[in-house]
Amino acid sequence: MSKIEAFNSYREKMNEEILSHDNKVLKRFFSLDHATYQDGALSAKTKELLGLVASMVLRCDDCITYHLMQAKKEGVNTEEVYEVFSIANLVGGSICIPHTRRAAEVWLELEEKS
Amino acid sequence: MSKIEAFNSYREKMNEEILSHDNKVLKRFFSLDHATYQDGALSAKTKELLGLVASMVLRCDDCITYHLMQAKKEGVNTEEVYEVFSIANLVGGSICIPHTRRAAEVWLELEEKS
Amino acid sequence: MSKIEAFNSYREKMNEEILSHDNKVLKRFFSLDHATYQDGALSAKTKELLGLVASMVLRCDDCITYHLMQAKKEGVNTEEVYEVFSIANLVGGSICIPHTRRAAEVWLELEEKS
Amino acid sequence: MSKIEAFNSYREKMNEEILSHDNKVLKRFFSLDHATYQDGALSAKTKELLGLVASMVLRCDDCITYHLMQAKKEGVNTEEVYEVFSIANLVGGSICIPHTRRAAEVWLELEEKS
Amino acid sequence: MSKIEAFNSYREKMNEEILSHDNKVLKRFFSLDHATYQDGALSAKTKELLGLVASMVLRCDDCITYHLMQAKKEGVNTEEVYEVFSIANLVGGSICIPHTRRAAEVWLELEEKS
Amino acid sequence: MSKIEAFNSYREKMNEEILSHDNKVLKRFFSLDHATYQDGALSAKTKELLGLVASMVLRCDDCITYHLMQAKKEGVNTEEVYEVFSIANLVGGSICIPHTRRAAEVWLELEEKS
Repeated sequence: MSKIEAFNSYREKMNEEILSHDNKVLKRFFSLDHATYQDGALSAKTKELLGLVASMVLRCDDCITYHLMQAKKEGVNTEEVYEVFSIANLVGGSICIPHTRRAAEVWLELEEKS
Repeated sequence: MSKIEAFNSYREKMNEEILSHDNKVLKRFFSLDHATYQDGALSAKTKELLGLVASMVLRCDDCITYHLMQAKKEGVNTEEVYEVFSIANLVGGSICIPHTRRAAEVWLELEEKS
Repeated sequence: MSKIEAFNSYREKMNEEILSHDNKVLKRFFSLDHATYQDGALSAKTKELLGLVASMVLRCDDCITYHLMQAKKEGVNTEEVYEVFSIANLVGGSICIPHTRRAAEVWLELEEKS
Repeated sequence: MSKIEAFNSYREKMNEEILSHDNKVLKRFFSLDHATYQDGALSAKTKELLGLVASMVLRCDDCITYHLMQAKKEGVNTEEVYEVFSIANLVGGSICIPHTRRAAEVWLELEEKS
Repeated sequence: MSKIEAFNSYREKMNEEILSHDNKVLKRFFSLDHATYQDGALSAKTKELLGLVASMVLRCDDCITYHLMQAKKEGVNTEEVYEVFSIANLVGGSICIPHTRRAAEVWLELEEKS
Repeated sequence: MSKIEAFNSYREKMNEEILSHDNKVLKRFFSLDHATYQDGALSAKTKELLGLVASMVLRCDDCITYHLMQAKKEGVNTEEVYEVFSIANLVGGSICIPHTRRAAEVWLELEEKS
């Protein structure tokens, strides 16, 4: 199974488990998270890049994988993704480098699939 | 080996390695860490929930696993655990979601064992 | 003006400014933040302590002030507050000490008022 | 002196002090920081928004002030800024709220000046 | 009152307040914090530089001020301090720049006093 | 394959991938990262210890592995490494313990190889 397939499969299974417990705050939070990246004054594409850079400086690999998938769907190209990587590294420092390596691997897999 | 067994086995082995080096600060720190969660003005149960939410917002999967095990021993139930999850996500944001997924998996394993 | 009065006055003024812009995600997020600390499987008192320890390890002075005020309203006593401080320092490390100093000052002001 | 003037005056004075010590790594880092936000595959405007959201989730008030000033120069409008605020709060959680209050105050000052 | 005098005066007053509450975990933690920076396999000077760089990447201004004072007592010179600053900025990223400005100001005050 | 070999092999492959995209900011940042740890007013050995403690409090396992390898090359001994571990735990708190376990494992592997 590819990195992305493994991520998607686990994500789906565990989100279902979490939401099955009927905690209202978590349900509303998950729903709000989805609403945040819809087209608005800023395009969905720009919002995904914002989500990506935020995930990188906070160093959340799963969040990075998710936003890279969404960015791909929104038509972001490789040069643009690497500019996001560069901003994340400058703002967040060299501790972002290992996450950039894993992000580059995910992006490669997304490119090969398309 | 289950997730929890793997965690416990590695934790025990490496704690032994660390403490074998006789670094006094680390020894005192490990001992103090243990003392912190004893019954006091707040119950051990409440303290484990405090340790859990702190571990979630700081996004330390191993710490989350540890405090979930302790919380289980203190009689915390599933609804309570999910309320801790909800506070962690609100305070710490959507970057806590992937850690919540892994926490939910650990909690499932603890429930199945009991 | 006391530390707490200054905090409350600025908080109220700027929350009004933020919400006046009618950003739906922010509105829902602020409303969800409020709902998170209501009585449930865990008491509102326990939830405020969870909010407090999360704010301390994430080192957010304003959040600490807010949860100390709420904890006071929920009847938390000084010994309990200091046990939360101790967990925050153990989990979050000595970088939490300066925030503990400011938290202790806020708590003193809350005690004197009551 | 306004918040922004105080920030700019201190920033300029201390940057000069720092660079006067002729540390080559810091000089190259400051110069690289400047280069990061130039037009490229992504526009300077988008890059400032990326710098802003990264600063918000990392909760750096001075960095937020700086990127708000740059965003204003790049023609970002209030609705767009608030969408960045909303993403920062969702990703980074409620500990970003106090920084959002201060960001909203800086933005008000920038709007009043223009 | 200078920045350093204000820091020292508040630190002393609030540490006294904190320790007056007789929370054993906090007392042991404060005492352990002190023991951590004593001469050992590494010199006290090197340990203060380690404490300084850790405080900078974690962006704790009060901790930075404290370790700069201790570093000064241990005979650290300006060139060495700036090399610590450079490592902190590289590892921790541009969000460390505002803290570097304040650190540079504190160091100037320490140099002028000596 | 050992932990260290796996790390080195992935690191080399992905750094090559990242640099192949010719993003100038990332290229300059990687080159600057390398320059930061050269001998200067502080020795390369001391700088590696500074990089190590910064990586530990920021909880970046790959960064820790890298600086442990460099520290080994600079002649750092086990007692010194454990003093760095102790400072990291005190400053960064018990959330650093799981990273200390993995760091201790990497150090063991480095010791066995030498």
